[in-house]
Amino acid sequence: MAHALSLGRRGMGRTWPNPAVGCVIVQGDVIVGRGWTQAGGRPHAETEALAMAGDRARGATAYVTLEPCAHHGRTPPCAQALIDAGVARVVAAVQDSDPRVSGQGFAMLRDAGIEVTTGVLSEEAARDHAGFFLRTEQGRPWVTLKLATSFDGRIATAAGHSKWITGPEARREVHAMRLRHDAVLVGAGTARADDPSLTVRDFGNVQQPVRVVASRLLDVPLMSQLAQTAKDVPVWICHGHDAAPALREAWDSVGAALVPIETEAGQLDPVSLLQRLGERGLTRVFCEGGGSLAASLLLADLVDELIGFTAGLAIGAEGQPSVGVLGLSRLDEAPRYRLIETRACGRDVMHRWVRSA
Amino acid sequence: MAHALSLGRRGMGRTWPNPAVGCVIVQGDVIVGRGWTQAGGRPHAETEALAMAGDRARGATAYVTLEPCAHHGRTPPCAQALIDAGVARVVAAVQDSDPRVSGQGFAMLRDAGIEVTTGVLSEEAARDHAGFFLRTEQGRPWVTLKLATSFDGRIATAAGHSKWITGPEARREVHAMRLRHDAVLVGAGTARADDPSLTVRDFGNVQQPVRVVASRLLDVPLMSQLAQTAKDVPVWICHGHDAAPALREAWDSVGAALVPIETEAGQLDPVSLLQRLGERGLTRVFCEGGGSLAASLLLADLVDELIGFTAGLAIGAEGQPSVGVLGLSRLDEAPRYRLIETRACGRDVMHRWVRSA
Repeated sequence: MAHALSLGRRGMGRTWPNPAVGCVIVQGDVIVGRGWTQAGGRPHAETEALAMAGDRARGATAYVTLEPCAHHGRTPPCAQALIDAGVARVVAAVQDSDPRVSGQGFAMLRDAGIEVTTGVLSEEAARDHAGFFLRTEQGRPWVTLKLATSFDGRIATAAGHSKWITGPEARREVHAMRLRHDAVLVGAGTARADDPSLTVRDFGNVQQPVRVVASRLLDVPLMSQLAQTAKDVPVWICHGHDAAPALREAWDSVGAALVPIETEAGQLDPVSLLQRLGERGLTRVFCEGGGSLAASLLLADLVDELIGFTAGLAIGAEGQPSVGVLGLSRLDEAPRYRLIETRACGRDVMHRWVRSA
Repeated sequence: MAHALSLGRRGMGRTWPNPAVGCVIVQGDVIVGRGWTQAGGRPHAETEALAMAGDRARGATAYVTLEPCAHHGRTPPCAQALIDAGVARVVAAVQDSDPRVSGQGFAMLRDAGIEVTTGVLSEEAARDHAGFFLRTEQGRPWVTLKLATSFDGRIATAAGHSKWITGPEARREVHAMRLRHDAVLVGAGTARADDPSLTVRDFGNVQQPVRVVASRLLDVPLMSQLAQTAKDVPVWICHGHDAAPALREAWDSVGAALVPIETEAGQLDPVSLLQRLGERGLTRVFCEGGGSLAASLLLADLVDELIGFTAGLAIGAEGQPSVGVLGLSRLDEAPRYRLIETRACGRDVMHRWVRSA
């Protein structure tokens, strides 16, 4: 199952709106099939693994990281494919939360006389599929917030200089993280100040994550890298109803997708923002700031995972804060996260946290 | 030598102005003597180890973490004691930088026909004795700056709440760190806001580090814990020449030592502050903030080691910054530190850095 999980992760960021599943088929002591959900969400992992196994799937055990689907979508149900292939036993990590599948895949297999075991490495699998589950259950994607700061928590000098706070190893790791998400999200301030391209670089010819910009007034220059490359790699620009029609047309003409979002207190409503991204199929969003967007997501309790890179330099109190104003009156109101990993990453410290239960 | 270093560390924070040395005497395969510099700096490590070894020191090898002293101070020279005991070989980690000793201890041993080896684990030893060397060479103590912050780099809410950002394990580790320093240093703002006692707790009946407060105007309440306990555990209050005479008298009467410091641009001059602390014998100072004092020390390039504790909560941009205004115009002017250790500490992340070479 650990191997199936690692196979499944190969699809992360590329299978949305489908889950990134892994499947291993074992005949005796021999692995006869391996598969993972392909880019675009099809073929499914089971289809891939069964195709590799061929006749050797008969009487074999299939390990899958998620309950096999039971419904006819754009592919025939995987549960049926496993039955047709003559698999004797299915070991699954977790049950699907999609109401079209939930429990029905297992039922279908059992009805066909296949032995079904569930709950194997279920915690790891639940974490891997968290974005898919969240979208199914709440309509919004998993949000990872990344903050790369000086050790005093600043993301840029007062003049806006941020190149480079963290070292090359940390920046490479950020690209790998982008790759495992469906989309990269930044606020308009960051898009203006850094003029980032937000693409994944130095990982070969990979499927790029969608680039999402939250800009109520569409006040990001049309000469920005994001606008100029919107025809090559998707850009979704999320704006308020008060954005100027001329700017909407301009962004449309450079090839960006315009996503209207409700506003609240003069800001894009973060709940509405994530609902719209969920409707468009995103299951995992990697937010790279800046401070205002980070604060808005934290305040609305919409940050599921937090990744910090802390660099060994001080910028001082006049530098730009990594998280904007939260308006807390007491310390116990502060959003809390649970540490799951910390290690050196080149010259910097990487730390990863998830929302406290 | 590794064992001698670990013995030497037992004295850290208690031997000032003397170095915290460790000594192991080995006869064949058997350790016959172990010693470390005792509280107050005497007896020296070699004296302790020789006393334990007795006659078994004859023909033995002595491992010492610092060159044995050659001068008659308040104790007879250790080099002479090693010669008198009939030691055959001395292995030392580093040469002393004290001009009264430097190289003369080794010369004295060699002249007596003792085989001398140096440079064994010298890097580790140089780090352990860094405070002692710094005071000998530059007249100032080693400065460790500790920052315990939210993941957005804040040390308190806007209202000043800071209890508790970090968890019990991190707080206990801070007490252990205080214990390994000669003194704990805070600014007046922190002394007022937190009313800390700055003592080492839950480590038994230990020699407490000196508590140093930097307060130009002596504007820390006389009802504060620091003032109220100054008769039990030393408090040194560092003030400017413009502090009110009545307050000087009041602090004197509660039992604090008054340390006048030069002022520069309306602030205590950090160079002068550390020179005065060096003159009074301190070799290792543990600064616990707040933001203004941290900024002042960083700007003057007086922070030798940086220890961060990062907690899994966000406080927001209105919270109090861990480092005050630095006034940098470019990112490459920012003081840089090199990561030497990072690990989880309870629910928080601990990271340790030293000044970049």
